[in-house]
Amino acid sequence: MADVKTEVPEHCPGTQSKDAGKASACAGCPNQTICSSGEANKIDPGIELVKERLLSVKHKILILSGKGGVGKSTITSLVSRALAADDLERNVAVLDIDICGPSQPRVLGVLGEQVHQSASGWSPVYIEDNLSLMSIGFLLGSASDAVIWRGPKKNGMIRQFLSDVDWGSLDYLILDTPPGTSDEHLSATSYLKAAGITGALVVTTPQEVALLDVRKEIDFCNKVKIPIIGIIENMSAFICPKCKNSAEIFPASTGGGRQLAKDLNIEFLGSIPLDPLLARCCDEGKNFMTEMPDSPVVAVLSPMIQRIIQKCEKTEVSSAVDD
Amino acid sequence: MADVKTEVPEHCPGTQSKDAGKASACAGCPNQTICSSGEANKIDPGIELVKERLLSVKHKILILSGKGGVGKSTITSLVSRALAADDLERNVAVLDIDICGPSQPRVLGVLGEQVHQSASGWSPVYIEDNLSLMSIGFLLGSASDAVIWRGPKKNGMIRQFLSDVDWGSLDYLILDTPPGTSDEHLSATSYLKAAGITGALVVTTPQEVALLDVRKEIDFCNKVKIPIIGIIENMSAFICPKCKNSAEIFPASTGGGRQLAKDLNIEFLGSIPLDPLLARCCDEGKNFMTEMPDSPVVAVLSPMIQRIIQKCEKTEVSSAVDD
Repeated sequence: MADVKTEVPEHCPGTQSKDAGKASACAGCPNQTICSSGEANKIDPGIELVKERLLSVKHKILILSGKGGVGKSTITSLVSRALAADDLERNVAVLDIDICGPSQPRVLGVLGEQVHQSASGWSPVYIEDNLSLMSIGFLLGSASDAVIWRGPKKNGMIRQFLSDVDWGSLDYLILDTPPGTSDEHLSATSYLKAAGITGALVVTTPQEVALLDVRKEIDFCNKVKIPIIGIIENMSAFICPKCKNSAEIFPASTGGGRQLAKDLNIEFLGSIPLDPLLARCCDEGKNFMTEMPDSPVVAVLSPMIQRIIQKCEKTEVSSAVDD
Repeated sequence: MADVKTEVPEHCPGTQSKDAGKASACAGCPNQTICSSGEANKIDPGIELVKERLLSVKHKILILSGKGGVGKSTITSLVSRALAADDLERNVAVLDIDICGPSQPRVLGVLGEQVHQSASGWSPVYIEDNLSLMSIGFLLGSASDAVIWRGPKKNGMIRQFLSDVDWGSLDYLILDTPPGTSDEHLSATSYLKAAGITGALVVTTPQEVALLDVRKEIDFCNKVKIPIIGIIENMSAFICPKCKNSAEIFPASTGGGRQLAKDLNIEFLGSIPLDPLLARCCDEGKNFMTEMPDSPVVAVLSPMIQRIIQKCEKTEVSSAVDD
């Protein structure tokens, strides 16, 4: 693969920049010739297609966390179901861009469903009348099949998800992402550049090892100019089912999500305790909020959702993801 | 970037295959010309460099899990410290190939250390006389810096880690990986092709949402022919610090890791309970086994390590990662 030249210098001005191929950082880059010729400056037509397709989607929210296993998929399902359950009859959809580990089909209880293709694009799978989902999980032969794809292929899939799914008119599109700050995140943010991203919800657990990765994710958001709606701390405490004692599972040795939010001047949206019944509901694809309406999780979640709605509906959609 | 052609068909026979550019799947692939010309058939010189460098490394173990946050980094540190603590004076090293979320510098208590370059390559950072670590965490300006790299750049970094680090003579090299089955995993396994991989330890938590991704990881191991040493189940139960009641945090609705191992005919190495003190030790970079020798975690760990040693030292090094 001698002609693959994607090793770009660290201070690459970006292929869309006026300085592409001309900045000092470009010296020695294998793409310099193509960049300075203006060839690379042609805007990816995918960006316009995505913008066109998402014209009728009011708010696009990314669920992010540098760390895996902090509960992004759980939070995605809780937030989406809560938004869809509201009296106001919002239309909500979830797009699962975790290509290697799609969890949403299971968590939202539609494992094994099929995606249909129509003249207007792929139809997402409906969980409720006003809640739909698209995930690579629907396209795999078996749930145990590994998707062993390198970046460019994942990039193409995300583009298709964003430009080819017939979402209809939506109030909220919630994007569940994989851990890290790599291909999936770059692809989603660059394809959503023209369509605009309302903001990101950043999920963490209290321990420092998670916060370490979450700081990187926030640095990523700042670099690509995605506004952060707020930080949600998950698995904050475990209430013993026997003695009702509340114990820290992941000790917040450095102050947890609340301190992080304070340090970085980001809104802290709240702490969600760990309820084993929530993990079970996710495994079984059930709606936790209707199954366990009295759980402390639900009590914490309602004001959180209200605050998210309030912030989104007040926020101007950011189209500032320009470089 | 019009000359980047990494979108390969799903049934790509592989650029090293005799059928490269000639199989039916190659029709329409942008790499067909280069593949059929035999240009791509040249073996990546990195593979030989890695083999040369790792000649004095007896066992190479990958710590894998499709899911994030199941405790790969914790298990990596526990296993490495346990192997190094043994009376037999083993030399152990850890290579952290989680490029976007390196945790090992913190977990092993060497955050902020510097890597030095000598004539014989990069010197890893030493935690003990016989335990060393290399991680991208040592190369970042600040611990909060995001590494926003697409696949090919991560690939280059992993190659350098494998070929340019002066590990010295080692009994065990433990590779901590990020979640998923993508670039980092493909790069590590293809560069280790000639050097050989002893096997993989697969980490999971008991709940189905984790097992779902772990099945994909096992499918990946089978596809790239990495032998699996065994499955370790982490966070199996939480012992209430007040009433000592043992509660399932992540209910094993489908039988957990033990059932998975049974179904797939893989050895089950044991269940590690969740101890909040372990999370705290990892946050603080302390050695849990010397800090808390009476923890149930340590009791479970010792036979597990003995079994891993037994299996590794019996196993012929697999060099079967050929395609």
